[in-house]
Amino acid sequence: MKTDYDTPLMKQMRAHRSIRAYKSDPLPSGMLEAIVSSAQMASTSSYLQQYSVVAVEDRERKGRLAALCGNQEHIRQCPVLLVFCADLHRLKLVCGREGTQIQTEYVEAFLVAAVDAALLSQNVALAAESLGLGIVYIGAIRNHPAEVVAELALPELVFPVTGMCLGYPAEAPDRKARLPLPAVLHREQYSAEAMQPHLDTYDADLVSQQMFRSLATGEVYGWMARAARRMAYSDPASLRVEVGRVLREQGFGLK
Amino acid sequence: MKTDYDTPLMKQMRAHRSIRAYKSDPLPSGMLEAIVSSAQMASTSSYLQQYSVVAVEDRERKGRLAALCGNQEHIRQCPVLLVFCADLHRLKLVCGREGTQIQTEYVEAFLVAAVDAALLSQNVALAAESLGLGIVYIGAIRNHPAEVVAELALPELVFPVTGMCLGYPAEAPDRKARLPLPAVLHREQYSAEAMQPHLDTYDADLVSQQMFRSLATGEVYGWMARAARRMAYSDPASLRVEVGRVLREQGFGLK
Repeated sequence: MKTDYDTPLMKQMRAHRSIRAYKSDPLPSGMLEAIVSSAQMASTSSYLQQYSVVAVEDRERKGRLAALCGNQEHIRQCPVLLVFCADLHRLKLVCGREGTQIQTEYVEAFLVAAVDAALLSQNVALAAESLGLGIVYIGAIRNHPAEVVAELALPELVFPVTGMCLGYPAEAPDRKARLPLPAVLHREQYSAEAMQPHLDTYDADLVSQQMFRSLATGEVYGWMARAARRMAYSDPASLRVEVGRVLREQGFGLK
Repeated sequence: MKTDYDTPLMKQMRAHRSIRAYKSDPLPSGMLEAIVSSAQMASTSSYLQQYSVVAVEDRERKGRLAALCGNQEHIRQCPVLLVFCADLHRLKLVCGREGTQIQTEYVEAFLVAAVDAALLSQNVALAAESLGLGIVYIGAIRNHPAEVVAELALPELVFPVTGMCLGYPAEAPDRKARLPLPAVLHREQYSAEAMQPHLDTYDADLVSQQMFRSLATGEVYGWMARAARRMAYSDPASLRVEVGRVLREQGFGLK
């Protein structure tokens, strides 16, 4: 989108591509600390900072986590895997010291912490990219949440919301165009009708770019066909049916 | 934190302060579109883009939303209130067209969309700040979710995850220091023990800065005392007990 309003930060934002192949170089000493420390200035609900990050660099542990995350090879390859956690454990300790009782029975308690962790993660992504690193989010960290909780020794009231690989890129993939703005940005009220023609335009664009093609049949398809298939997955693994159970085991009520 | 690794983007990140007083100036034409359009390049789970943004500029609607959000005056004052929504409605329409059945019964379905919306929102915050705007997140958009759903005409499978005021700042508040890095960043596994001494240092720093002081007694207190009181709120409004019910009414199963 051509616009009169632009900044170097917005240019960098628009240059984002997820990186799934990494050089073997480690991060220079102090770089991860600089990234996370800057990222912490993200907004945080009620100044409560309900998140933690676990940085995994150990080759064996990264291998075990890769196996738990659908065997994504880039998790083995990248020098650092970050796991962003919703964390009310820290505040439970604080409440214990101060003699108050923490409330965790409603879904809101988890949602606040999950959003806090997500905001931190997006700042980490942008700070890392500004230093020349590549990133890819690892939602598959929720494929086997009980096993991830055990591997990372996550205590009560801590839950892995998302993972992220960090490292120097060994590939330069194409940009994946996002939905047209009018399909995403509504004025005053939500309008499904306004959205519809833009979905068709978007689909036609992606088809003409041949972004998605069936390996079996060679058929080229669009975002809608791909999304509709993906959203219809009904096997327990794809639905991540364990997430709710493990959240409750970790102490989040979800009422 | 002094570091050898720094970029203009990280400097801007660290300069973040939430703004709760705005000039009356509107955003220049096209600026909001440029911001959201750039922000859309945030990572999105499985390329599914499960979010929508509702931009509210109408004075009366902003007034009604302010009343629903604890009467925060800056919602009335700012030229634009954004409401970031988890949105599976768009994908349900797409599934309908493509003849597949969308799965929404597990908490994972909502969590993916909520994280998608949160990542978008943090990109919007940084893009806006890079253009000289100020922002503040409005978690209180979840105080009365059923009324917000009605006001914004949010259909089935759309839920307001967070709000955000945008506008030109009319204040320059102090930076609020975040937790020391070792209280947030864990190595290989979670360590509550490693975290503890840093909480004490942090608290002592905030007390010496007199960041929090009781209006009634003049007592200066630290982050831990403040957080412990806040986390112990047990009235239904503070716990936002309606969030779970309205999520289920909107079609999210949360199993």
